[in-house]
Amino acid sequence: VNDPRVNGADGSRRGPAENAQLALLLDVGSAPKPGNVDRDHDLADLRIEHFLAGAVGSGAGLRRAAAGAPVGVAFERAVAGMSEQSGGNTQFGCLLLLVPLVRAAAEAQSLSPEGVADVVESTTVADAADFYRAFEHVDVAVGDPPEDIADLDARRGADAIPALRERGLTLSDVMARSEGDGNAREWTTGFERTFATAAAIRDDDGPITDRISRAFVDQLARDEDTLVRTKHGSEVAADVMRRAADARGDPEAVAELDEEFVAAGINPGTTADLLTAATFVALEWGVEV
Amino acid sequence: VNDPRVNGADGSRRGPAENAQLALLLDVGSAPKPGNVDRDHDLADLRIEHFLAGAVGSGAGLRRAAAGAPVGVAFERAVAGMSEQSGGNTQFGCLLLLVPLVRAAAEAQSLSPEGVADVVESTTVADAADFYRAFEHVDVAVGDPPEDIADLDARRGADAIPALRERGLTLSDVMARSEGDGNAREWTTGFERTFATAAAIRDDDGPITDRISRAFVDQLARDEDTLVRTKHGSEVAADVMRRAADARGDPEAVAELDEEFVAAGINPGTTADLLTAATFVALEWGVEV
Repeated sequence: VNDPRVNGADGSRRGPAENAQLALLLDVGSAPKPGNVDRDHDLADLRIEHFLAGAVGSGAGLRRAAAGAPVGVAFERAVAGMSEQSGGNTQFGCLLLLVPLVRAAAEAQSLSPEGVADVVESTTVADAADFYRAFEHVDVAVGDPPEDIADLDARRGADAIPALRERGLTLSDVMARSEGDGNAREWTTGFERTFATAAAIRDDDGPITDRISRAFVDQLARDEDTLVRTKHGSEVAADVMRRAADARGDPEAVAELDEEFVAAGINPGTTADLLTAATFVALEWGVEV
Repeated sequence: VNDPRVNGADGSRRGPAENAQLALLLDVGSAPKPGNVDRDHDLADLRIEHFLAGAVGSGAGLRRAAAGAPVGVAFERAVAGMSEQSGGNTQFGCLLLLVPLVRAAAEAQSLSPEGVADVVESTTVADAADFYRAFEHVDVAVGDPPEDIADLDARRGADAIPALRERGLTLSDVMARSEGDGNAREWTTGFERTFATAAAIRDDDGPITDRISRAFVDQLARDEDTLVRTKHGSEVAADVMRRAADARGDPEAVAELDEEFVAAGINPGTTADLLTAATFVALEWGVEV
């Protein structure tokens, strides 16, 4: 990989790894993002400092992705570094989206859905094994897999690797089998919603943190949040979408929604993952900070 | 430098460069810090995203310091990266304290005043030249130098380097001549106040962000802030100390002080520099995040 932008880490300009780290930080530096840890407030056991440390710790893995390391290796290292704080899982889902995007950004003159689709397409069984290893570093909230692939339950961590090898599944195959997961859907659709949300952030006005907050509420209204559904069921997830649709564009209503979600323990984490990925793309496209 | 902790950048544990980056982030992730950009609020033209981008951009220079690069080179690179955002000077003073501390932490089993004094003592004329070059990247608010060293005015940037070479001044010599500057004082005293404040953070209880906020007000009450004096004069700087002494320990009074300082444009930036350096030392000593 000879693109000079990859050398952001040694020069003064931000390269893809640095923009990914900044996107992770802008995620908690923006507010309101109803129900999530953000600039305005913490949750009971999950605080802003855990996200700041998670973003710092992710740096080495993200730089490996920018330098051309396999997606699985870079992801596993990023998750290992992210986990070096006491808050638990802060940015696993964000990194699952960011790592292939960073690879794609480092490999091309400009970041495109086709570029990241190529990265996804080129993943291997070894990448899938590293993805499972990453679950060993931190507890990740995931739903039950379909019965016919129970041996591939991500919660089994590295124990699932033999089953993975036997079936010859690449990381792209694993994502294609993760039906109904918001992050896996990005992997299988050329990051369709990520790029659409990045365009919304780019075309909006004002400080980037305000743009992120607005795009967060829009996305919450648009698609069911996987983490909310996993923790609270489909009815609550559908209600969150309706409530976000009603509140969007009205700062007071959004602030009320935030308070209510925090009180009810409703934490739309998958929407935050998508917003972080979209923020990264917007930064790569030149949105100014 | 063979200490395995230097390899934080490639492993999962945070090394000195990563702890320095985290300290920069915790500085804006904590609140209230009366008069400064913090988690609670921005200033008119200086916002949290500028500090987040500054911390990300500083990473490469900080990693060079941890890897044993000369203090001047690492500092100039860190400032160059920090400056890649549109808010102007965010963390020049912080980096002036962090770079020798990172070098000292990477060279020893445990970070001590003696270790950083050795780093200061070993600086060269080349380090001083790089320090002056760093002023080319960003506008830094500094006071007028004494008349007999007007040719060494930091605002001259690289133009001052010939005078520097002629006099054979090392970076340590330059700091010793910067009388009355809070950051230079740390350089000439073995980082006395930095280590004392780090001990206060370590010995306090609760989330690290709350400890930082409390230690900030204590430090504001203890020593005149150089940036406040440079911008507003000695009387205002002395008044800030008195006001902080009255408010400390009373969250409501501290919140009022914050509002008042923001309204008056009183921005105790040198105190924030010292707190960031102290946070780094506390992290190196094992304070948990």
